[in-house]
Formats: sequence, C-alpha cells, structure tokens
Amino acid sequence: MINARVTVTLKNGVLDPQGKAIEGALGALGFDGIGHIRQGKVFDLQIETEDRAKAEADLKAMCEKLLANTVIENYTISLA
Amino acid sequence: MINARVTVTLKNGVLDPQGKAIEGALGALGFDGIGHIRQGKVFDLQIETEDRAKAEADLKAMCEKLLANTVIENYTISLA
Repeated sequence: MINARVTVTLKNGVLDPQGKAIEGALGALGFDGIGHIRQGKVFDLQIETEDRAKAEADLKAMCEKLLANTVIENYTISLA
Repeated sequence: MINARVTVTLKNGVLDPQGKAIEGALGALGFDGIGHIRQGKVFDLQIETEDRAKAEADLKAMCEKLLANTVIENYTISLA
C-alpha cells in the first residue's frame, strides 16, 4: 500500500478570486506584507499496490481525468 | 521575500464527504484499489520579510485566525 499526495494549483495567469479574498481578509486582520496568495487543493489517498511506477501512472491518469482541470490547473504527485 | 506554502487537512476522524465522493467517482472511472481519500487545501503566498522566524510565527497566527479551522483541521507550514 502506497500513500500518495496530489497537489493541484492554479496555473500562472489564471485569476484566483478566492486567493484575492483571503489576501484582503488577512490585511483586515492586520497582517501586512502578504502577497500573491493562491489557493489550491490537496488530495491524500492510499493505493493498494507496491508497484510505485504503476501507482504514479495511475495517479497521473486520475489527475488528467478527474482531480485536476488541466486547462487551468497544474498538478504534482508525491509518493510517501 | 519568502515564499511559503500552508497545507490544511482534515483531522483524523472528521468525516470527509467530498473525499468519499471523489473515491466513488474514481471507482466509477475504473480506478481500483484506491482508498482513504481526504481532500484538503493549500495556500501559496509571499511574505515581504527576510526574517524566517517572524514569517513562520506570522503564518502560524494566520492559520489560527483565518486559514484553518483548528477544531477540525490540521495545518503544516513550509517555507521555500
């Protein structure tokens, strides 16, 4: 069994209104000098295999098909 | 200027219906042997300081006050 983490982030240039809202909220809370906030998603999951190459290939397919919108998002895969 | 990443994940034992839905969707797409999917959030941001200790303390305060709900979520901070 392999533990994996998939991180999905917006590509550069894609507007991130949620990030902007968080930036505003942090400013309102008194945190200065904070910028370029971008929010992304993270998926932690377990794969029932011991074959790391297969796990990585499967994860890539999952990202392409479901977890990430590759038009506007990048993804990174890391195996524990 | 310091680049930082904050990862917010649900604590163990907290129900994650979104993760369950993703698990079901992956199964329907033909990915077998996937389990324990948990979805979390990731925040990438820049802090205008060179003082890493201050940056880390600030980030911790931001997590406690805004970025994470510490009743049900854990957070990890990593500085680039």
